[in-house]
Amino acid sequence: MNKTIKVFPPGTVANLVCGFDVLGLCLHEPADEMQVTLTNNRQVIITSADGYNLPSNPALNTAGAPLLEIMQQLNNDTGFEVVIKKNIKPGSGVGSSAASAAGAVVAANYLLDNIFSKEEMVSFAMFGEKVASGVKHADNVAPCIYGGITLIRSIFPLDIVSIPAPPLFVTVVHPQIEVKTSDARQILKKQVLLKDAIKQWGNIAGLVAGFMKNDYELIGRSLEDVIIEPIRSILIPGFDEVKKKSKDAGALGGGISGSGPSVFMLSKDEVTANAVKLEMHAVYNGIGLDHHVYVTRINNEGVRIETAP
Amino acid sequence: MNKTIKVFPPGTVANLVCGFDVLGLCLHEPADEMQVTLTNNRQVIITSADGYNLPSNPALNTAGAPLLEIMQQLNNDTGFEVVIKKNIKPGSGVGSSAASAAGAVVAANYLLDNIFSKEEMVSFAMFGEKVASGVKHADNVAPCIYGGITLIRSIFPLDIVSIPAPPLFVTVVHPQIEVKTSDARQILKKQVLLKDAIKQWGNIAGLVAGFMKNDYELIGRSLEDVIIEPIRSILIPGFDEVKKKSKDAGALGGGISGSGPSVFMLSKDEVTANAVKLEMHAVYNGIGLDHHVYVTRINNEGVRIETAP
Repeated sequence: MNKTIKVFPPGTVANLVCGFDVLGLCLHEPADEMQVTLTNNRQVIITSADGYNLPSNPALNTAGAPLLEIMQQLNNDTGFEVVIKKNIKPGSGVGSSAASAAGAVVAANYLLDNIFSKEEMVSFAMFGEKVASGVKHADNVAPCIYGGITLIRSIFPLDIVSIPAPPLFVTVVHPQIEVKTSDARQILKKQVLLKDAIKQWGNIAGLVAGFMKNDYELIGRSLEDVIIEPIRSILIPGFDEVKKKSKDAGALGGGISGSGPSVFMLSKDEVTANAVKLEMHAVYNGIGLDHHVYVTRINNEGVRIETAP
Repeated sequence: MNKTIKVFPPGTVANLVCGFDVLGLCLHEPADEMQVTLTNNRQVIITSADGYNLPSNPALNTAGAPLLEIMQQLNNDTGFEVVIKKNIKPGSGVGSSAASAAGAVVAANYLLDNIFSKEEMVSFAMFGEKVASGVKHADNVAPCIYGGITLIRSIFPLDIVSIPAPPLFVTVVHPQIEVKTSDARQILKKQVLLKDAIKQWGNIAGLVAGFMKNDYELIGRSLEDVIIEPIRSILIPGFDEVKKKSKDAGALGGGISGSGPSVFMLSKDEVTANAVKLEMHAVYNGIGLDHHVYVTRINNEGVRIETAP
C-alpha cells in the first residue's frame, strides 16, 4: 500500500532588510497544501490543484526537482506522486517556489522515515530554487524547513544557524505588480562602498543581537539597509510612503520581502500590526494600485505535517 | 582636599576578524596604570611615569583630550592631574591609545560621583582616539569601558551593544615591527565586491550568534575575513603561517588585532591557548623576528578601579 501525507509549507521573508542573501524568516500564513504519496514506481508525477500554470515536468518544477535528487540518492524504485494546491502566489516575493520545494522534501523525508537531517533537506530543496531562479539559494527554503529566523552563514558548505527571537507580528502587503527575481538581481551593483558595507554588517550584527536579547528597540534600529533597498525599492511603487507610514504607526521596521514586490513590516504586537495594515491599504488605495495585505506572525515550526485525525 | 583614584585600563582587540570597525573585545592583560586627581584648578596636567615619549600637552595627549572635553561640559573650576604608566606598548595594535583615553574618562567619572553613563564615557574617550589617529572610532574605547565584547552598531549616533560570550582565552603575538594605523587604513580599497560583503555579513552574524549561543564551533567557522585581512596581512611578516599553525594547534580562529601588527587567536581553554603561544614563538623564531607573545582572557569588567585597601 502506498503511503500518503499532507503538508503545509508556509511563506517566508528572505533578506530581512540588512541580511541580504543570508537571513530569512518563516511566516504562519499563507501556506500551500501538498499531498505527497510514496510509490514503487521510479518517477515523479505532479498534479496541480490550483489555477497556476506551473510546469508539470518534474525536472522543471520546483517541487519535482528536489524529489528527483532524493530519488537519485536513494537509487532504488522509490517514486513520488505530488498534488499541489498553491495558496502562495508565485512571484509575490514571499517564497512561493521555496514553499513547493521545502514542502516536497519535508513530505518525502517523513514518508522515508526521517532519514535526512534538516540541513540535508535544505540542500535538496535548493535544487527547486535553482529551477525557479537559476541560482541555488537557501534564504527561503532554510526558514521554511527550520521555522523561525535562520541565518545561512555559508552556502558552500551549507551552514545554517537558527536565530532565537521574541514573538513578532508581520504585516505584508503585496502590490499587484510583477518584479522578476532575475531583474531585481540584475540591477544591483557588483561593487559597494566599504563604508556602506561596514554600516550593513554593523546592522546585521545588531539585528541578530536584538533578536537573541529580545530587544525590540535594537531590532528596530538595526532594520536598515543602505545597500540593496535604495536600488530595489525603485521597482516598488509607494515603497517609501509605506515604510514611513508603517513606522509612524508603530512598526519596528521592515522593507522589501525577498526581491519584492511584497513589502513586510515587523511589529511587537498584533494591534500595531493591524494599524500598519490600515496604513498600507491607505497608501495603495491612494495611488490606485491593486494590492493584498495581511497580518501574520513568526512561525517557529516551519512546514507543518498533517497528523492523523 | 583633592580626591585621587588609581585605574587600570586594559588592552583591547578591535575588529575581531569579520567585524571591521564595529566589533571589539576587552583583554585582561596588558593594562596601563593611571593615577588621576581631581583639582580646583581648571587645567589638565599630565605626567608620564614610563619611558614612552608621549605628548604632555593635554590637547595632544589621548588621555588629556577627553578630560578637556569633560571640563568644557562641566564649565566650572574642575581640573585633573594625571600620572600615566603605560604597560601597553603604543603602536602594538591592542588599543594603547584607547586605554589612556578610557582610563582617564572612567577615573574622572568616578571622581565626579558617576555622573556619566557608559555611552557618554565612550563619546568622551573618542576624543582621545581622534588625537591618536585623526578619526573618532569606538571599537577599542567601547570594549575598554564596557568590558567583554562590544558591537558599535553606529558611531553617529552612538549605539553600543554588549555581546555576551562564553569564556575565551586569547593568545597575542606582537612582532616588533611598526604598522601605522594611517597606513593600514590607506591601503584598504574604497570599494568591495558585493559577494564578498555578503560573505562578511554572514560571518559577523554567525559570530554574534556563536558568542550568544556559547557555540565555540560556530565562533570558529565565523572567524573569517575576506575583505580586510587579505590586504592588511601583507604588512605582517609570518601572518599566514601563524594563523595556520595556531589553528592546527586547536585555536578557534583569529587574525589581525586592530590594524596590527599584533595577531590574536581565540581558544576554548588555557591549555590550547598556551599551545598556540608556542607555535607563534616558533614561527617568529624561525624567521628571526623579535616578538612578544602572551596568553590572556576576555575581561568582562573593563577598566578596573582600585578600591581602598
